[in-house]
Amino acid sequence: MPEALSSRERMRRACLGERVDRPPVWLMRQAGRYLPEYREIRQRVGFLELCRDPDLAAEVSLQPHRRFGVDAVVIFSDILLPLAGLGLALDFRPGPIVENPIAGPADLARLEGSVAEAIAPTCEAIRRAKRALGPDVPVLGFAGAPWTLAAYASETRLSRDLDRLTSLAWREPAFVERLLERMATIAAETLRAQIEAGADVLQIFDTWAGVLAPSRFRRFAGHALAQTIAALPRERPPLVVYARGAGHLLEDLARLGADVVSIDWRTDLGDAAERVGVRVSLQGNLDPAALGAPEDEIRAEVSRMLDLGRKARGHVANLGHGVLQHTPIDGVRAFVEAVQGTARA
Amino acid sequence: MPEALSSRERMRRACLGERVDRPPVWLMRQAGRYLPEYREIRQRVGFLELCRDPDLAAEVSLQPHRRFGVDAVVIFSDILLPLAGLGLALDFRPGPIVENPIAGPADLARLEGSVAEAIAPTCEAIRRAKRALGPDVPVLGFAGAPWTLAAYASETRLSRDLDRLTSLAWREPAFVERLLERMATIAAETLRAQIEAGADVLQIFDTWAGVLAPSRFRRFAGHALAQTIAALPRERPPLVVYARGAGHLLEDLARLGADVVSIDWRTDLGDAAERVGVRVSLQGNLDPAALGAPEDEIRAEVSRMLDLGRKARGHVANLGHGVLQHTPIDGVRAFVEAVQGTARA
Repeated sequence: MPEALSSRERMRRACLGERVDRPPVWLMRQAGRYLPEYREIRQRVGFLELCRDPDLAAEVSLQPHRRFGVDAVVIFSDILLPLAGLGLALDFRPGPIVENPIAGPADLARLEGSVAEAIAPTCEAIRRAKRALGPDVPVLGFAGAPWTLAAYASETRLSRDLDRLTSLAWREPAFVERLLERMATIAAETLRAQIEAGADVLQIFDTWAGVLAPSRFRRFAGHALAQTIAALPRERPPLVVYARGAGHLLEDLARLGADVVSIDWRTDLGDAAERVGVRVSLQGNLDPAALGAPEDEIRAEVSRMLDLGRKARGHVANLGHGVLQHTPIDGVRAFVEAVQGTARA
Repeated sequence: MPEALSSRERMRRACLGERVDRPPVWLMRQAGRYLPEYREIRQRVGFLELCRDPDLAAEVSLQPHRRFGVDAVVIFSDILLPLAGLGLALDFRPGPIVENPIAGPADLARLEGSVAEAIAPTCEAIRRAKRALGPDVPVLGFAGAPWTLAAYASETRLSRDLDRLTSLAWREPAFVERLLERMATIAAETLRAQIEAGADVLQIFDTWAGVLAPSRFRRFAGHALAQTIAALPRERPPLVVYARGAGHLLEDLARLGADVVSIDWRTDLGDAAERVGVRVSLQGNLDPAALGAPEDEIRAEVSRMLDLGRKARGHVANLGHGVLQHTPIDGVRAFVEAVQGTARA
């Protein structure tokens, strides 16, 4: 067993497939409504307002680290923040609503303005969180993947299975390709700004890639993801790609140039490790709903997950999707403690 | 090449893996809003009212057969119709809303009343459609799978990824098991009544099974599906099971006792055929959004689908999900003609 590592070093090594003392653990959407200290702030401040206030965004990002000692602090922001700065009228009620979606080629010209400016509060929140945490705890920045950004940008309210964008991709593929190209530059600019602000790890969320068949993924979402990743500096922090409901795209996701593929709860972690081999590390993948189970069951599920994770090149323990709103705090604690080996079991 | 078969015999043989002249073809949700003759009727009659009017339901079921000559007529109804007859206050706006969901064990007693009575209009519509069609065209009846029925029954409006029911399954598994058991009897009664009315093929829709990891599927949705199928008569029409987003459950779906597994557009049909072997036939799986593409592209996609389908024990050509509302009629026609080999290409 190697000596105990700092969370930052543990996270870096797990992402790159180097030796670690134990898997690092954090939770997607770990700063959120299931925490009373978060809800307390949100009583006073709207969601977008909170994203745009560097002090409060840093504070909210740090809350779950204070409570659970997770191995990474994910900065509080939203993947749509850059789009809101580029002239899209974005609101949350509570799901995202875009009043003026990009419906055709002529609308693309409307996407002007500075991405760097739009996400300046997030970058400032990264700096403040890093100052508060010191060098041992990594701060994770993130961006939406081009396909997922295009999904929100092209529709007022998302249809189930993303019917509108997938239909558009059959009917007007050239337009969808141009839209994705624009979204790829936005995603890359978002990540570059966060690298400059000091982000230690990056994650790209392709929440909606899973609706595509593999050949459609390669032509649209995957192509634009690869463009995004290629536009990052050669020397960059470890990069995670998350896609929801994308077990059928795993081999494709592993070939994009990312260091880690984050899989959802539906894909067996052991099978995934066999399928991707040593090409990437894996992140995930406990069912977020499982955190409502009795604690001994959570510990058993974590134990199974860690066993399967050992088959991967490297494993970052996480959920298969974001923490659900009604998750009990003790369930989150049991999850983190079980990974960190401090469970009272 | 065997001699030309009737649609009914072609469908039966494809489902059971016997030799056919060509794959039969029909479309899920083939009677619906993309058809002007359907919209014309719906201007006068609400959705539930239409389901409950045997004359109109039969008429609407026959419309796509008249227009496209599909190989099966699926009866117009809704998987929630039996629940609406058992005291659940169901409305469509346009998605289903249940005002008085089954939230806990005490609510189960509320589910009383006769399933046979609730779906009597559907059974009568089956009889009328069969009289109109004669013996050569099969009529397909259907029911919702227990897990999918439980999803709608237990929540006013479905949450994304079915968070509420999946959480409940971790928190109160005994209640969810009882709920599923009740839903399994409802699904089986629905199918038995349709068999008696003369349905030539049956399909069970497990629209929401795909949110479950394989082990959870086996314990909950799959177990209840197997119960449903076991409760059908030994001598029964061919049975199809459809699950959306369930590529990760394919082997499990093939082991339930159904004759056909209907796969969605995300799963490669050739891979699926290898995975299930000769255990079941496959149905599907063109991307419904592809029907908006130029017709030569639709023909190319159909040709690819039919090639892959030849690897299966039997293949029923279909979409990977229901026809989308804004689908062009010419796209549907191109799809059907391409399968039936009458395309002008």
